[in-house]
Amino acid sequence: MQLNRATDISLRILMLAAAQRRVLTIDALADALNVPRNHVAKVVQRLQRQGWLETTRGRGGGITLPEATLDVSVGLIVRHGERQTEVIACEDPPCPLRTACRLRSALRSAQEAFFAALDPLTLRDLLAEPTGPALLTLLPLRPAARAMSKQEV
Amino acid sequence: MQLNRATDISLRILMLAAAQRRVLTIDALADALNVPRNHVAKVVQRLQRQGWLETTRGRGGGITLPEATLDVSVGLIVRHGERQTEVIACEDPPCPLRTACRLRSALRSAQEAFFAALDPLTLRDLLAEPTGPALLTLLPLRPAARAMSKQEV
Repeated sequence: MQLNRATDISLRILMLAAAQRRVLTIDALADALNVPRNHVAKVVQRLQRQGWLETTRGRGGGITLPEATLDVSVGLIVRHGERQTEVIACEDPPCPLRTACRLRSALRSAQEAFFAALDPLTLRDLLAEPTGPALLTLLPLRPAARAMSKQEV
Repeated sequence: MQLNRATDISLRILMLAAAQRRVLTIDALADALNVPRNHVAKVVQRLQRQGWLETTRGRGGGITLPEATLDVSVGLIVRHGERQTEVIACEDPPCPLRTACRLRSALRSAQEAFFAALDPLTLRDLLAEPTGPALLTLLPLRPAARAMSKQEV
């Protein structure tokens, strides 16, 4: 079974921001992750509302990841992303068993086991070798960006 | 996260066939489950190849569920349906972390926990009240079908 697209992108953005630990623009994220800019913008807004990212506007603006977010549980991030997704599509096509189905409750328990397996992991855990080092290679500083980030830091 | 469409339809077909325990035509399945006929046909072929359904051709033909299938594990059915589905879409869009990603291995472990939660359940378990009785109401015998099934039984 598959995570929905928004959860997928949330995880990629959080991992990249967690590894890079500097201001990242929406454009830079979109480029580095091969995700359309508007998808990134929408997900960033959601993550900012959750308190997992901070955003700054204007020149030199973008997103940063607060230290505390490193200790957020991956299970929590995934539960949040999947909160409106049902594990089986009872409405599509509309299944006549909707109100009397043992399968659906069995699948919900299985989904809970899925989330529970991710609860003990934090974003920091995901950055251990080789992932953290690999993430650092995704956004090499270009000359213009290098000058700008000297200003910000 | 969500099961793929084929796994979803497999489960619906198996549950209906398990509850009804008589020859069911592809058309009757498609009607009862609100699933397009060609989707049903394709899934039935897959389930027949697994040995979970038997098919008979010609007049009065259709599918039946062998007794042994009642004891097949729901975990096995779902594992089979999901065998080509990755829990996160690393190729879409292509994620640069493909070869160095702790997230992907964490998600695979979580997926294994999902399947493991379903392993102890059988199709028979899914037919307990209220689901079994509800499934019997999905295919009332129409007069023509009634005459035909008297011949087969």
